Amino acid sequence: ADDQAAPDRTSLAETERQAALLRDRALEGSAAYAIVESLTTEVGPRLAGTPDEARARDWAVAKLRALGFDDVRVEPFEMTTWVRGLETGAIVSPYPQPLLLTALGNSGATGPDGITGTLVPFATLADFAEAPAESVAGKIVYVGHAMDKTQDGSSYGFFGNVRRRGPAMATAKGAAAILIRSIGTDSRRFPHTGGTRFNDGQTPIPAAAVSNPDADQIERIVALAADGGTPVTVSLTLTPRVAGTTLSGNVIVDLKGSERPDEIVITGGHLDSWDLGTGAVDDGAGVAITTAAVKLIRDAGLTPKRTIRLVLWGAEEVGLLGAQAYARAHADEIANHVTGSESDFGAERIWKLHTGPVSDEGRALTARIARLLAPLGIAPGPENATSGGPDLIPLNRAGMPVLRLVQDGTDYFDLHHTPDDTLDKIDPAVLDQNVAAYAVLLWMVANSDVDFRRTGTGADG
Amino acid sequence: ADDQAAPDRTSLAETERQAALLRDRALEGSAAYAIVESLTTEVGPRLAGTPDEARARDWAVAKLRALGFDDVRVEPFEMTTWVRGLETGAIVSPYPQPLLLTALGNSGATGPDGITGTLVPFATLADFAEAPAESVAGKIVYVGHAMDKTQDGSSYGFFGNVRRRGPAMATAKGAAAILIRSIGTDSRRFPHTGGTRFNDGQTPIPAAAVSNPDADQIERIVALAADGGTPVTVSLTLTPRVAGTTLSGNVIVDLKGSERPDEIVITGGHLDSWDLGTGAVDDGAGVAITTAAVKLIRDAGLTPKRTIRLVLWGAEEVGLLGAQAYARAHADEIANHVTGSESDFGAERIWKLHTGPVSDEGRALTARIARLLAPLGIAPGPENATSGGPDLIPLNRAGMPVLRLVQDGTDYFDLHHTPDDTLDKIDPAVLDQNVAAYAVLLWMVANSDVDFRRTGTGADG
Ligand SMILES: [Zn+2]
Ligand SMILES: [Zn+2]
Ligand SMILES: [Zn+2]
Ligand SMILES: [Zn+2]
Repeated sequence: ADDQAAPDRTSLAETERQAALLRDRALEGSAAYAIVESLTTEVGPRLAGTPDEARARDWAVAKLRALGFDDVRVEPFEMTTWVRGLETGAIVSPYPQPLLLTALGNSGATGPDGITGTLVPFATLADFAEAPAESVAGKIVYVGHAMDKTQDGSSYGFFGNVRRRGPAMATAKGAAAILIRSIGTDSRRFPHTGGTRFNDGQTPIPAAAVSNPDADQIERIVALAADGGTPVTVSLTLTPRVAGTTLSGNVIVDLKGSERPDEIVITGGHLDSWDLGTGAVDDGAGVAITTAAVKLIRDAGLTPKRTIRLVLWGAEEVGLLGAQAYARAHADEIANHVTGSESDFGAERIWKLHTGPVSDEGRALTARIARLLAPLGIAPGPENATSGGPDLIPLNRAGMPVLRLVQDGTDYFDLHHTPDDTLDKIDPAVLDQNVAAYAVLLWMVANSDVDFRRTGTGADG
Repeated sequence: ADDQAAPDRTSLAETERQAALLRDRALEGSAAYAIVESLTTEVGPRLAGTPDEARARDWAVAKLRALGFDDVRVEPFEMTTWVRGLETGAIVSPYPQPLLLTALGNSGATGPDGITGTLVPFATLADFAEAPAESVAGKIVYVGHAMDKTQDGSSYGFFGNVRRRGPAMATAKGAAAILIRSIGTDSRRFPHTGGTRFNDGQTPIPAAAVSNPDADQIERIVALAADGGTPVTVSLTLTPRVAGTTLSGNVIVDLKGSERPDEIVITGGHLDSWDLGTGAVDDGAGVAITTAAVKLIRDAGLTPKRTIRLVLWGAEEVGLLGAQAYARAHADEIANHVTGSESDFGAERIWKLHTGPVSDEGRALTARIARLLAPLGIAPGPENATSGGPDLIPLNRAGMPVLRLVQDGTDYFDLHHTPDDTLDKIDPAVLDQNVAAYAVLLWMVANSDVDFRRTGTGADG
């Protein structure tokens, strides 16, 4: 901590010089990899609402204190917790063989003896939506899709609806169960889990995903069976259950602002993960990147004018429950949230900076930030960010502007929500590039007095 | 079938012209991919000795007949059949979390309630071999290793001993169970199964593999626990069982020789697979490549002087049982087996041609074959082949010379014996390159009168 870094002569030029210093220090090696290694090794999977997620909160409090942060706090909230059971499946006829499948979050159960039924296949969700209820009532629906890799991950919105909406649609049509092609872009036999949502008043039916290779196999068998005029019969056993009301929580630490401590620049990642992997890429990486970035600023002896708030969110995967709890608990404060930027899209390189709609002075500062990010291979994009990350959606809807450092998501949906989301998939040097970008962004915004809000409009402008 | 292809004026030059024609036809598209697609889709996994393998034999007989081969026969044999049960595991303390594991073939069972024990880790099989029995008695042994990718797959011999010999060693030292790092080169969470062998008189203990990511996790936790002075406790539940004596069989078809029908040029692949995947790469590909090559010769209207024998071997994975049954049943005929070449190393490109020790005239013909293979990117290697493929080991030991078309095995142990061994991993065009090479090899040897045996020595000479 040198004298020049003191906050009382922070002209914009000085702030930029400090940001460049933080950036270059991050590239020399940050704390990020050690943080995600610790979380994934010592806690492992941490499904929202379970004792595993509670251990993750304990880990986070202890780790943040060990990293030198005081005033670490947990904001708890209640939630309804779903837990996985057994999950097996098979093609019964005409070509008997096992299927590897995994229940979607909120899936109903088959009972321990499982169910067997005729498969009714659809190539797309739109095809299924048009099908009359009598064509699928009492049967097992299969819905495919053709999701492919995209660098920005944008096709997840469209194709992900097979998972998000397919099961409720199947329930409404009276289906016995639904199998979907995983929302994934790999050719590995791990199915991808993820949340689905049933409609109010619906009793959830069993809902599971099969891997892409198994979906290909189902579709080949469906075609052969159709040639032979025989039906395809499948069996599945899923025994998930609702464990009742339990506690989750957000873990929060502030790097307190020196001049405008009530103005908050919010960042973080989510602490919960799906239960199949150890949540390294989703979202141990985000926890690690943002924690390391805030630590880097503090370790440099820098105190921003505004408060930088790191939130390690609970229960993101199961419906942004931590985000909603925070927005409720901090409803009076939201107007003071200057910007938000969450890291929750893996562990690959950041390649662009997007913002949502911002003020003219916000746009000017973003351009200065982009200059500092350019040496990291990051280009500024148009004002089209729809959120600053999933956990910031409620705050963004309530008017908080967002800046988003977009990671390369080309391979993100290879691992997403599978057992394969483990530490070995993370490159420490790439994490450091992320830390460098977050440190620049957070320091530049938090050490400014720029108002990013467009006057007279909400953030959705 | 043109007139020029008739066998009665087959000078060497004419035979070479025909071989080149077969090669080029294969590259235009062979039957191989359709064969492996059919096997893996309509039969799927086919563990030796089970009804699934019996369905594979039925499939093979029907498929070979449909491809136009008559005189398809099955040579059955009896075997002791082991089948998989439940398999789950976990680190119990100090950092509780699930492990993904799979039983090794012949593993003992834990009983349905599983066992829990202290883990005793070893970095290598040699370290474990040196450990005194009292250090592991009643405990759960873990053995790691550092197998890396090789193009020729040669390191499988050395590192594979962790799987082949570790469990017998652990049983001899009184261990309660053994976990090994998978004999695999991938960073996916599918553990690799494969056979292990207990010593005569030993009662098999539970023996399982964990994936490389899980092995890394175990090793990280072992290191952390050692720092803290606490033991690592793991639990596992394995319920495999011996299903008793059942039938397996080899499926055989001959392309009968016109001049020397008793002289046999043997090829093929193995019909059984491990039960986790659909056995596309191991060894549906070998079945498909060699079947397609023989079909290509026959469909060209070519009849070789010698008989080409295609054997689709049963029960290879569990100890070369089909190979041994064949060698016993055909003991009187082995002297008439001219050469053997099995395809059982995946579905990637062939890059070299090796032979075992051969006669001078065999070496001369091999050089002619190598010229024909050169346009396929295949180079001849030294006389160091130790077998013509696993199922030809008994015949090779009994004196049959071997030629081996070596596939690129760089990625073979990524998929080997995992659920990920499925059809999507196979490129039809690459299969055709394999078919081209086998067609050349088989035609050149079977349409010659060259004796590959070195006089006065066995094949191991
Ligand atoms: Zn996430
Ligand atoms: Zn997620
Ligand atoms: Zn094999
Ligand atoms: Zn094998």
